Amino acid sequence: MSKNKHVEPRTLKGFNDQLPEDVIARIEVVGAIEKVFRRFGFIPLETPALEHLDVLLGTGGDQTNKELFRLESPEGDEIALRFDHTVPFARLLAQYPDKLKTPFRRYAIGPVWRADKPGPGRFRQFTQFDIDIAGSNVIACDAEIVAVTCEAMQSIGLSRFTVLVNNRKLIDALLESTGIKEEAKHKHILRVIDKLQKVGVDNVRLELGPGRVDESGDPIPGVNLKDEAIDAVLTFIAVKGDSRSDVVDHVESALPDSQLAKTAVAEMRELDECLIALGVSEEHGKFDPSLARGLDYYTGPVFEVALSDAPEFGSVGGGGRYDGLVQRFMNRPIPCTGISVGLDRLLAALAHLEIQPRRGTLTDVLVVTMGKVPKSETLKIAQELRSTIIIDNTGRKRNINTEAFLASKKKMGMGNQLSHADHYAIPVAVIIGEDELANGQVSVKDLMAGKEQREGIEDRDEYRQAGKAGQVTVERAEMIKTVAALLDAKLADES
Amino acid sequence: MSKNKHVEPRTLKGFNDQLPEDVIARIEVVGAIEKVFRRFGFIPLETPALEHLDVLLGTGGDQTNKELFRLESPEGDEIALRFDHTVPFARLLAQYPDKLKTPFRRYAIGPVWRADKPGPGRFRQFTQFDIDIAGSNVIACDAEIVAVTCEAMQSIGLSRFTVLVNNRKLIDALLESTGIKEEAKHKHILRVIDKLQKVGVDNVRLELGPGRVDESGDPIPGVNLKDEAIDAVLTFIAVKGDSRSDVVDHVESALPDSQLAKTAVAEMRELDECLIALGVSEEHGKFDPSLARGLDYYTGPVFEVALSDAPEFGSVGGGGRYDGLVQRFMNRPIPCTGISVGLDRLLAALAHLEIQPRRGTLTDVLVVTMGKVPKSETLKIAQELRSTIIIDNTGRKRNINTEAFLASKKKMGMGNQLSHADHYAIPVAVIIGEDELANGQVSVKDLMAGKEQREGIEDRDEYRQAGKAGQVTVERAEMIKTVAALLDAKLADES
Repeated sequence: MSKNKHVEPRTLKGFNDQLPEDVIARIEVVGAIEKVFRRFGFIPLETPALEHLDVLLGTGGDQTNKELFRLESPEGDEIALRFDHTVPFARLLAQYPDKLKTPFRRYAIGPVWRADKPGPGRFRQFTQFDIDIAGSNVIACDAEIVAVTCEAMQSIGLSRFTVLVNNRKLIDALLESTGIKEEAKHKHILRVIDKLQKVGVDNVRLELGPGRVDESGDPIPGVNLKDEAIDAVLTFIAVKGDSRSDVVDHVESALPDSQLAKTAVAEMRELDECLIALGVSEEHGKFDPSLARGLDYYTGPVFEVALSDAPEFGSVGGGGRYDGLVQRFMNRPIPCTGISVGLDRLLAALAHLEIQPRRGTLTDVLVVTMGKVPKSETLKIAQELRSTIIIDNTGRKRNINTEAFLASKKKMGMGNQLSHADHYAIPVAVIIGEDELANGQVSVKDLMAGKEQREGIEDRDEYRQAGKAGQVTVERAEMIKTVAALLDAKLADES
Repeated sequence: MSKNKHVEPRTLKGFNDQLPEDVIARIEVVGAIEKVFRRFGFIPLETPALEHLDVLLGTGGDQTNKELFRLESPEGDEIALRFDHTVPFARLLAQYPDKLKTPFRRYAIGPVWRADKPGPGRFRQFTQFDIDIAGSNVIACDAEIVAVTCEAMQSIGLSRFTVLVNNRKLIDALLESTGIKEEAKHKHILRVIDKLQKVGVDNVRLELGPGRVDESGDPIPGVNLKDEAIDAVLTFIAVKGDSRSDVVDHVESALPDSQLAKTAVAEMRELDECLIALGVSEEHGKFDPSLARGLDYYTGPVFEVALSDAPEFGSVGGGGRYDGLVQRFMNRPIPCTGISVGLDRLLAALAHLEIQPRRGTLTDVLVVTMGKVPKSETLKIAQELRSTIIIDNTGRKRNINTEAFLASKKKMGMGNQLSHADHYAIPVAVIIGEDELANGQVSVKDLMAGKEQREGIEDRDEYRQAGKAGQVTVERAEMIKTVAALLDAKLADES
């Protein structure tokens, strides 16, 4: 077959494959976070990747409409890949009101698709994990969302992060006092506030007023607020404080004495009280009046997750209360609150911060052979390792995950076999040679010990000699004990 | 808003949502199987849902081509949703030969899409789990695939199943002796053999010969083999035996004395030897010469998983050795062997057989309140339960997964709260009333004990009274101990 007859193996633009080097961190992070979700009583539901187009269309704004991957069902219906987990969840709530008795907590971990412009760390298929509480309008639910997010972040080794919290009702109370009633103008103001971190306070002032010209010379239209209203907005979003209750006090004085303001401030006080009850520190849960969150459908508290030591990654997650979205699908509202975190960006940030939740390997042992050893002997040894349950030094019962090195003769050189273990970071080798086999013994080798010596050695024989360190020959009956001790030592090194 | 303005909440034809009643069994099954895969040294890789159309097209035959969900990338490229995990894996092997050093073991658990005609238990998005060993042509790898499949089945509580095993090379040796060389005819014969279970031996004889007319009166063209060749095929596929080695002996006599036959028989003998080494019983791993497997790309051993007590579910999985597929994407072959199991059909079969791998719940405790109890108190109790690690009676360290019942006043009736716990099968409630709060106590309630009494009671007050059984009031400091004991008792009931 000539080369040009082959189909070129390639990934779609903006898509990526998860290879062995990526999967371990991914598994650890997803596993740890999922455990926290369950600890808080969230249940994983799954919806299909594809939805009817009208279910999705318009829920995420014009940009999202454009970014939908659209196609046709076999029946000719317009369908599309989901762009988030929130809209499918809202559909579920309306579709199965009897099965999804509320208040209901659900989590989702899975891919979403957006035909966005791809860039470094920006993919067209990416994994989001979402938690939502549906069917309850009490503020304690919003506090639970913040708390579970904080514990999820901590569970993967992050300590320097902040969940920023604001409340749409505070902004509503502020805008009410300016006398502006048009919804379009409210949305415009929210979008301008959202830009504060990016463009700075002077540009925000211009955009709230007459507008401005950006660096490229393009005009940016303004909201045309009066100076007094602009001052009120800027005073409000500049509010800071030493604690959440401090921020609420300052916000209260920055707002007019209206019913709406009273309600909004009371909600924030209750939220603070609940966060204290849940043990969310002032560092991890911060009130920030400048947080606007672009999405139209938020109606109460809003959240955003920022990593203190990696500000360049921007927000790794966000969410808020959306009491109106489910009404898109049914006659009555089901109040909801939730948050959504991007796994890919989180993993990139963890790698950047050199935080590894656990430097585990998936495979503990590689069974390798020297000389004429029947494959069935390799398999017997592997099977013995796999089927024995050991108790590690943390008290956990576990199996020994074992790969048998099985290849054709030309790949069975010892150097090649050990380099295979190095490549996949397998920490222990069990070696059977003809002598061992005859004597009822095996050699057990600590591959972490010899790894550095083996690195850079090209010659296979040298390679093989290099790692005699950490190798012991034991009776077959001692194999499990010897392997378990090496795995324990490895665990101890990491902790 | 008038009702007809709502978007109808609905799932696409042929797609399904995973609701709370489905998720627990699903999680247990996936978790157990994944653990077995890792125990055998398989690593999970993930590929995107979408592939370039030319990567997929033609790999699964004409029917699969038609069933692809096709769309366009933003750049106008023809793309499609993957229809299996095997073809994307073959692409990976060709695309990353340095990173995926072989022999390489990978597993995948995830959705695939086929625009098939939907039916009961047949979905257009369904979950498959795949295991493959790439880069090794040794038969021990095929044995590992059979063994890991058997252990995966056992891990979810199945004991009465069979992995049927045959070898394409045996059939090749048989066909060689008939003198038929045309590949199209070989494929036709394989398709006819594949129908044996469905149409019976007499119809197979007709289809190998002149053809036949089916019940609807449609003509089915035959292969037009000579009688002698038909007899040879029928004798071969009828071979049975008391053990795998017995089957091989009989197969050997049913085949001509050719080089190909010798090779094929030797492979089967080695496979048997490896299966014995891996502890695969004669019941779980059976040789069956009538197993053909439709797919064109198999080149050696082929596998199919059948459930002995649920034959109506047909095969729940299948696979085989495919030494040529990767060559579609690169200049050299990478021999592979693997199997693919359909999770949805497996779950349906388990439900049918009333096999539950573990009757676990995700959420252990619901914190409920009576009277005027501040939400922050509910949260404090919930948080204490969540953050204390207990050791259950199997020695496992775990958290207590806890939901706080948080709803608006009208939903806070005790009957409603307990019925919430019943609905989601939460086994334990921690109750705080005003009295308990004042006295520094909580009530702990075994919800499994009162459940039957509560069933069918409509009146909320009666409902509340019905379940006084299994309720104790304890000091706050005793809460965890009391809850842990109830959860332990529940574990003991199940085992």
